[in-house]
Amino acid sequence: MSQGPPARGSTTTRPSFQHRQEVLDTRALGASTRIADPGTGRTPTAPLAPYPGTDTPPALVEGVVVHHSPIIEDPRGNLASLELGRGLPFAPARLFVVFGVPSKQVRGSHAHRVCRQLLVCLSGSVACIVDDGRHRQEFLLDGPELALEVPPMVWAVQHEYTADARLLVLASHPYDADDYIRSYDEFLSARRAWEQRRA
Amino acid sequence: MSQGPPARGSTTTRPSFQHRQEVLDTRALGASTRIADPGTGRTPTAPLAPYPGTDTPPALVEGVVVHHSPIIEDPRGNLASLELGRGLPFAPARLFVVFGVPSKQVRGSHAHRVCRQLLVCLSGSVACIVDDGRHRQEFLLDGPELALEVPPMVWAVQHEYTADARLLVLASHPYDADDYIRSYDEFLSARRAWEQRRA
Repeated sequence: MSQGPPARGSTTTRPSFQHRQEVLDTRALGASTRIADPGTGRTPTAPLAPYPGTDTPPALVEGVVVHHSPIIEDPRGNLASLELGRGLPFAPARLFVVFGVPSKQVRGSHAHRVCRQLLVCLSGSVACIVDDGRHRQEFLLDGPELALEVPPMVWAVQHEYTADARLLVLASHPYDADDYIRSYDEFLSARRAWEQRRA
Repeated sequence: MSQGPPARGSTTTRPSFQHRQEVLDTRALGASTRIADPGTGRTPTAPLAPYPGTDTPPALVEGVVVHHSPIIEDPRGNLASLELGRGLPFAPARLFVVFGVPSKQVRGSHAHRVCRQLLVCLSGSVACIVDDGRHRQEFLLDGPELALEVPPMVWAVQHEYTADARLLVLASHPYDADDYIRSYDEFLSARRAWEQRRA
């Protein structure tokens, strides 16, 4: 399977990128009950809106990175590519594909203690919320040229899957049930302790 | 994004697996002109046929492995997973996604000297030919639970992409134009030399 030299085809960048964001109450880490769990599917404060220009929106949530690889177009077919150091931030130890998700379903709704993940929606679209307890952002992943890097200790939710959505998730670590934090309140406590250790 | 413990959902295995195979003239490595380049799209000797039972067909081409991960079905969506040591045979240094390939197009038609690849068709289907100069096999990749491992020094061709096909390719090495062998005759010579060094 040929990635092919980039010079062979032309590249395109997407005209816009849908996202929305929200600055959380900065007392959140000390008053977790003020923040609704995004996993409950509460109404967002703003609609998803195009980010101006061809850039990806800046990630306000700590450690989150939106990687954008131009698509290489070729009459023989198109190609989106991620390489270590260029969009692929770690060598995956595990990957999984999520598909056939009913549109009303919400997935994720947890944080990882250690595992780092990269989300790429290869078909259809899915909205991804990330939240570090201070900022919350939502990104619409709707093409293989977009990859959302979610570091450990960030709460993540995926919802609004289209019927044809195929979400590829690359994980830095093998599966470990103990790596999951599944309660938002527990996440805020663990995040606070983690930030204090780091300070 | 949760892989989720396997116990949470039920698993399914596919009822059949389409493939065809061909034993090449064993003098091929010494008489390369006797073998047509599969990249030219010549008519296969046999139609793709279901392999009986739920097993994957044995790979006759040296080093090729068909990995089959059961799908974990869940009312919240389905999941196919590969983990190092369980279907993911190496930590990828690069991945790319091929899509929008016209149905008549043939891609691949080369071997790698060093790079190992894993092909997973996440949407639609694509037929993949592998050839070590002694055997040639073709596998229909038509679901995220199937992964075709192609080792270095094996000729590979992909064709018969459906319009909705999204082929994920994981590569063990970064992109290197010098790693490609793009002529079938050159491949047979290199393969012969490689086998002799190994003997």
